[in-house]
Amino acid sequence: MKALRYENEKLSVADVARPEVDDEALVRVTLSGICNTDLEITRGYAGFQGTIGHEFVGVIEELPEAVSETRPLGRAQFQEEHALTVGPLTRGQRVVGEINAGCGTCVLCRAGDPRHCAQRTVLGIVGRDGAHAEFLKLPVVNLLPVPDEISDERAVFTEPLAAACGILERASITEETRVAVIGDGKLGLLCAQVLATTGAPVTLVGKHQSKLQIAARRGIETVDVNRAKARTREFDVVVEASGSPKGFDLALDLLHPRGVLVLKSTFHGATELSSARIVVDEISVIGSRCGRFAPALDLLKTNAVDVESLISEERALDDGLRAIARASEPGVLKVLLRP
Amino acid sequence: MKALRYENEKLSVADVARPEVDDEALVRVTLSGICNTDLEITRGYAGFQGTIGHEFVGVIEELPEAVSETRPLGRAQFQEEHALTVGPLTRGQRVVGEINAGCGTCVLCRAGDPRHCAQRTVLGIVGRDGAHAEFLKLPVVNLLPVPDEISDERAVFTEPLAAACGILERASITEETRVAVIGDGKLGLLCAQVLATTGAPVTLVGKHQSKLQIAARRGIETVDVNRAKARTREFDVVVEASGSPKGFDLALDLLHPRGVLVLKSTFHGATELSSARIVVDEISVIGSRCGRFAPALDLLKTNAVDVESLISEERALDDGLRAIARASEPGVLKVLLRP
Repeated sequence: MKALRYENEKLSVADVARPEVDDEALVRVTLSGICNTDLEITRGYAGFQGTIGHEFVGVIEELPEAVSETRPLGRAQFQEEHALTVGPLTRGQRVVGEINAGCGTCVLCRAGDPRHCAQRTVLGIVGRDGAHAEFLKLPVVNLLPVPDEISDERAVFTEPLAAACGILERASITEETRVAVIGDGKLGLLCAQVLATTGAPVTLVGKHQSKLQIAARRGIETVDVNRAKARTREFDVVVEASGSPKGFDLALDLLHPRGVLVLKSTFHGATELSSARIVVDEISVIGSRCGRFAPALDLLKTNAVDVESLISEERALDDGLRAIARASEPGVLKVLLRP
Repeated sequence: MKALRYENEKLSVADVARPEVDDEALVRVTLSGICNTDLEITRGYAGFQGTIGHEFVGVIEELPEAVSETRPLGRAQFQEEHALTVGPLTRGQRVVGEINAGCGTCVLCRAGDPRHCAQRTVLGIVGRDGAHAEFLKLPVVNLLPVPDEISDERAVFTEPLAAACGILERASITEETRVAVIGDGKLGLLCAQVLATTGAPVTLVGKHQSKLQIAARRGIETVDVNRAKARTREFDVVVEASGSPKGFDLALDLLHPRGVLVLKSTFHGATELSSARIVVDEISVIGSRCGRFAPALDLLKTNAVDVESLISEERALDDGLRAIARASEPGVLKVLLRP
């Protein structure tokens, strides 16, 4: 099968063996999405080697005959926690998949949340081939069926949308909370829209009128980054989704004392930070990575979030190198790959 | 009067006019303590010019005839919040003083907490001459009487001890919380002791056996910094009190995912930070600056914290330059100044 791989500091579309089915499910990928983390991996982030990609929608090709003994417990608790009422997964079912695959036996996994399992692999990021391929495999417990109302083009946004929803697990946001999101890229646009669903007044800070418009059409206030400084100390919560050290400094400017700065971007390298500002203004800097898929599927099902406008283009997996190059260009939002 | 001043990038013991009493109290300083923030100011931190010093115990020399109209409200609420039952302050009374002097009229000040008032001055740090002097002035509302049980040599630790207590306002710490404190300097020793009063198991990480001994005598586990790496991912809360970027990295090593890193040190310059680690492990980095004086006075009154062992030496204010030099030497803890 074809796969977009990063190996020995080189990116290529390679012909590789189809994953063998052991105790995991084999999924035929329908569409995958290029994330900034994919680009960061090609710059050395996470030291990953293999097939990149972790955003996908696909169809179950094969299920393991018997899942390992530790899985069912995890899955039962997982379903309960997500209030899922789905039956067992079947071949041919359309699915998305949570990207953290836990050991299944540690305290975290047994509690149904493998996101911080110390032994975890992460699809296309840590120790596990990813989604920019014809097939991928994941533990059955990671897969969620996609409701019929959600097209493939929308379902492929489940993972990044879940990541945006993850902010709500980490920071208290109510209708009273003044929220700013810095960065009008894919992640920022998703974060702003998700946070606005809470009823909180949300301001999106960005550079690109065309991108800001996507949020504005959903009733979100938008501000050009050059004018944002005028909003100094106005916000309770600021989400840094620009991935730039400048975004970090601006976030500190926008927060009032004891405000909350949510960090969403993972990128290669270190950031210069004025720790004195964090101490003097008693800021809370909260890291936020992955979110749960169920709330994201709910948002997609009810059309509460516009994701279609974030699609810049779709390319064939064969054209993966050019797709990655395009995704790196300023102004380009989501680039999808179709195997 | 004599005062230890930092002006035009130069430190000197100068003869200056005694502060004029307007609507504030005049305090004759009995003892003042040199804090690392004083040293940082002489390296450019906060851009302060004037008399440095913010840790003191003294005696009320003069009280204003009438306090400004906005003060009594603040003081009443302040007293209520601190459960203070003291009567009005009188001349000759022994006092310590909270260092943030608010505008008295903003929402924060009216709620009795001027620590983040945007218009605040801060004793010896922002726009207000400090405590390494024969006299200082502060709003009456800032002053708290010192119980007779607390000697001057102990009372002079009220401010840094309050800063350590401030951690408990910012992070939830119970008997179940595994806490590490990085840094066996003055601040680290106070933080470790304060946090241990909650019943939480506290581990102090440091370099100096003699300093670690001070904590060990109070039943606190101590670990040499070179052996601390073996404790990777063991802690729920880590307090960075070393003021070194290396301390920041070690703190991230010691924390398990979703742990809390409390930043206490204010120093001049920026720190390189791996924001990716904060995001991937979903760490909360919590800035903590000043604390309330009342809990600190309680700890001093009940001898719950050993502060005497932190005194390295006492010098005359006249000898301020050498005292600052001594306080900068490795291995030296608190240097006190007596006007």
